Amino acid sequence: MKTLLLISHPDIDTSSTQQFFLASLPESEDITVHILDKEYEPGQIDVDREQALLMAHDRIVFQYPLYWYMTPPLMKEWLDVVLLNHFAYGAGGDKLAKKEWGTVVTAGNAEKEHHANGVVGFSMNEILIPMRATALRCGMDFIEPLVVYAFHQYEEEDKWRLLVRYQQYLTMENFTTLKDREKWLIQELGETDLSLLPEGAGPVLEQIIEGMEDRRDEIDELLLHTGRED
Amino acid sequence: MKTLLLISHPDIDTSSTQQFFLASLPESEDITVHILDKEYEPGQIDVDREQALLMAHDRIVFQYPLYWYMTPPLMKEWLDVVLLNHFAYGAGGDKLAKKEWGTVVTAGNAEKEHHANGVVGFSMNEILIPMRATALRCGMDFIEPLVVYAFHQYEEEDKWRLLVRYQQYLTMENFTTLKDREKWLIQELGETDLSLLPEGAGPVLEQIIEGMEDRRDEIDELLLHTGRED
Repeated sequence: MKTLLLISHPDIDTSSTQQFFLASLPESEDITVHILDKEYEPGQIDVDREQALLMAHDRIVFQYPLYWYMTPPLMKEWLDVVLLNHFAYGAGGDKLAKKEWGTVVTAGNAEKEHHANGVVGFSMNEILIPMRATALRCGMDFIEPLVVYAFHQYEEEDKWRLLVRYQQYLTMENFTTLKDREKWLIQELGETDLSLLPEGAGPVLEQIIEGMEDRRDEIDELLLHTGRED
Repeated sequence: MKTLLLISHPDIDTSSTQQFFLASLPESEDITVHILDKEYEPGQIDVDREQALLMAHDRIVFQYPLYWYMTPPLMKEWLDVVLLNHFAYGAGGDKLAKKEWGTVVTAGNAEKEHHANGVVGFSMNEILIPMRATALRCGMDFIEPLVVYAFHQYEEEDKWRLLVRYQQYLTMENFTTLKDREKWLIQELGETDLSLLPEGAGPVLEQIIEGMEDRRDEIDELLLHTGRED
């Protein structure tokens, strides 16, 4: 599976979340990192190049900060000029059909503020409706977004968990079931020298694996009794 | 009531809907027309000027085409750089509180496509959630949007009805009740020489008024019997 990571942030070099993500990127030939702000000025997007990039990948991940609940201006321009009639939708517009639409968004507010009674007043699912509708119109599969709420409040352990989730989000073929997530992590860790990771990473990852194994034991036991498989 | 009409369209000079709206503007000192694309290049928005404009008006109307269900890039940039912390929200950020947030959007698809089973897959209320959430965060009153679906299918009569609705949307202090709409229209027509209007306008407007009067008679009769007032 090939992943196109489309990033837009009006001030990417000083964004702590975007810098965290860039430092967390897995080394993989199957990931193309494409920072729109580094490639283009407004009004200069190369439509042919962008459409060719889209066609060469299976999962398109839109990574951006949710200022005023929408994409940054340059990413909106990208949507407008690249996802054209007869290419992305309309007659003959099936070039993106069946590809996956991924979303990595950062939100300044805490998760609990994202509902009817919170400061935001709407859920994240509701806020992302324009992107979901765009994916739908292009025949793409809108996969569950990876949302980072209030990154400035993250502890070291939260960051390591996020790193794992982010790498899974970009590389895992199917991350919707617990079993797949575990399989992926154990496989990745088998290829990782934990001593090379920054201080604090090793113990946290081991803790995550232990937690997964505990849950897995419980689940397996339940399945044994019910005769079902998940 | 002073209205600030904020327009953004990537190709305003050739847009038939935007040109229709511009030609339909009522002559009024209380309306400030502000076409972002004519004022600014990307990255050049004068924040102080824009904030002063906002503070000098009571109803802020965002007029734009709903390409990919969001604002055009330049309007998104405007939101990001003008609606700042300590001005529009956050500590001391009450400069827009109680002002009205209006929306005039054009959508290429028919109204019936805007629901779960249509091509769009979502209702217009859902699609506008990022704008509703922005208004909410700024303490503004998000008034019912004026949505123009599939303008290219409009007949002459539809256009005249839209003209009336548009003028009401920009100038009427309270357009949520039928009674107010009628009062406004009758008052406006009193000051209008129908013979000066383009061909087709006069009969249509008269028809609208007749329809309103019929409904009003019925409603008044009902109210008489129930003893209630609307």
